[in-house]
Amino acid sequence: MSTDTKIKMGLQCPMPQLDFEYITLGHGSGGLLTNKLLNSGVFKLFSNPFLDKQHDGAIINTSGELAITTDSFVVSPIFFPGGNIGELSVFGTVNDLAMCGARPKYLTLGFILEEGLTMKEFWDVLVGIKWAAEESGVQIITGDTKVVDKGKGDKVFINTTGVGELLPGASIDQNNIKVGDKIIVSGQVATHGVAIMSVRKGLEFETTIESDTRCLHKMVEGLIEQFGQKVKFLRDPTRGGIGTSLTEMSKSASWGINIHQDNLPTDQQVESACELLGLDPLYVANEGIFLTIVDPDIANEAVNILRQHEYGTHAAIIGEIVEDHPGQAVLFSGIGGKRVINMLIGEQLPRIC
Amino acid sequence: MSTDTKIKMGLQCPMPQLDFEYITLGHGSGGLLTNKLLNSGVFKLFSNPFLDKQHDGAIINTSGELAITTDSFVVSPIFFPGGNIGELSVFGTVNDLAMCGARPKYLTLGFILEEGLTMKEFWDVLVGIKWAAEESGVQIITGDTKVVDKGKGDKVFINTTGVGELLPGASIDQNNIKVGDKIIVSGQVATHGVAIMSVRKGLEFETTIESDTRCLHKMVEGLIEQFGQKVKFLRDPTRGGIGTSLTEMSKSASWGINIHQDNLPTDQQVESACELLGLDPLYVANEGIFLTIVDPDIANEAVNILRQHEYGTHAAIIGEIVEDHPGQAVLFSGIGGKRVINMLIGEQLPRIC
Repeated sequence: MSTDTKIKMGLQCPMPQLDFEYITLGHGSGGLLTNKLLNSGVFKLFSNPFLDKQHDGAIINTSGELAITTDSFVVSPIFFPGGNIGELSVFGTVNDLAMCGARPKYLTLGFILEEGLTMKEFWDVLVGIKWAAEESGVQIITGDTKVVDKGKGDKVFINTTGVGELLPGASIDQNNIKVGDKIIVSGQVATHGVAIMSVRKGLEFETTIESDTRCLHKMVEGLIEQFGQKVKFLRDPTRGGIGTSLTEMSKSASWGINIHQDNLPTDQQVESACELLGLDPLYVANEGIFLTIVDPDIANEAVNILRQHEYGTHAAIIGEIVEDHPGQAVLFSGIGGKRVINMLIGEQLPRIC
Repeated sequence: MSTDTKIKMGLQCPMPQLDFEYITLGHGSGGLLTNKLLNSGVFKLFSNPFLDKQHDGAIINTSGELAITTDSFVVSPIFFPGGNIGELSVFGTVNDLAMCGARPKYLTLGFILEEGLTMKEFWDVLVGIKWAAEESGVQIITGDTKVVDKGKGDKVFINTTGVGELLPGASIDQNNIKVGDKIIVSGQVATHGVAIMSVRKGLEFETTIESDTRCLHKMVEGLIEQFGQKVKFLRDPTRGGIGTSLTEMSKSASWGINIHQDNLPTDQQVESACELLGLDPLYVANEGIFLTIVDPDIANEAVNILRQHEYGTHAAIIGEIVEDHPGQAVLFSGIGGKRVINMLIGEQLPRIC
């Protein structure tokens, strides 16, 4: 979140007065200290009818098809320009639900805290979670807190598991993809990875490069509401970047993918940073964008709809499904070169999410 | 699981031939190495129609009330007499669902691996998960794998989130509890905690004390099928032990709890180990037992039903709900003493689950 939002959220959710400053092993005991930690303000911060029962589990009433997805977050550092691990852990899972064609509804929250984490740091992460959950319209329905000895963790790891209701009219299925379909990206690539890497390497730019961690489901809902099953596939290219996502999509397909490098929306500063750091933007992790494959009839209109959304102003058609080179994604450069896109090999940016 | 089961499962699920021996950061990149790791045999091990799609999320079709619960597992060491972190992470969540009065159906699985973990260790954990999932009748429907740098984790942490369907006739609600109701425990206390502690302290006994990690939902189903809403409350007293669970149950109630120490089923060796280690069995973590509060009319019959189950042979009525000392649980010793039971203070056994 931006500095403004941070101040606003901090005022709205001030840290409670506590008689301890650090997380200790006892806070993970399941006994008195765990109760004290959770009742110090954590339960109140996320209050809702599910959580207020303080049971080990939550009961939800549903019917129809549900999407379920899980993700653990180990990003380092836990605070970075544009966000923190708390927001990331909500938006990451909310976006995975959106990619299933679902409306995010509920989240579970599992913490693994390292002994010695300050309560202030933990509270800031919690406020990030609260803000992101409100932004996304999801409720935290149940959770778990463990503490590991100092040196056996790294401040805080978070698991979120999300439950969403499938959108009426959604039919997200790779089998629907046909030659001629268009590939759209909803925003600029490589922003999140470069934001994290800049902090780690102590790089400074004219303006700070901020992570684009944010929720994408409203954009997805807009598309599915308008175009139904003409929206054929959705993927948020996080770890591994769009290069890995495109390779995964095409690898066992009877068709190929062409991507036009000149059409890839990138921020000038992010691009310069990538050059400086020796990173290929195709493989840099993203958070706040998604790829979609749509019927060619609606591609231009879909881009226009995305561009009306605050997170979609840079949306663009970047390629298409072709008969050539089945099972492969190929990148065409502006000066006429072409190369096969492969998966990320090794790890260029460990612990990016 | 027992040594016999281990051998049998090992034969049934031999480790695949791999060209790497250790987990590296690249295995958490989301790129080629992550794909290689998962396709090396992990996906095959847990194969089911949900997981086989290899999407970021799973779609389940449901109706009615669902229980959802989440738990992270950080037990150390990851292999201990009677089990490993893999089994624990399945049974722990399956049991939390059972305590909601639900039949466990689906699990999500999130790994945080430490760089340098051997593939052999990881595989043994995976086989533990497979065995426990089969025992419990649950399917692993989606997952996530992250890797953290050496020294920033501790071999493997696991999060499981479980989804279960509420049993017809179940009405597990603390508000149904009335004075006169009986408190039953399904088996011997303190076994899991002492098993872990013995390994850590290098203690040896005549026979090895094995963790009682196992699934409890079949016993719970047996009770609810027979007695419906006369089964009023369920709780598995894991971290914090039965002392903490009894305190939590009674703390804001208009009634009190009496517990008769002589009726508490304990293993002689476990009791001796507790004395040796200076542990109060009331606060030692359990895995394979549960507490239930039932209508007095059915208490004896409920104990008989539990005792017919292989995990319930030591089931016993250990106390009752009383008018006296509302909000408190009181322990009566065999020699006429009594003391108030409080929550576990501090942490006597860190990282027990």
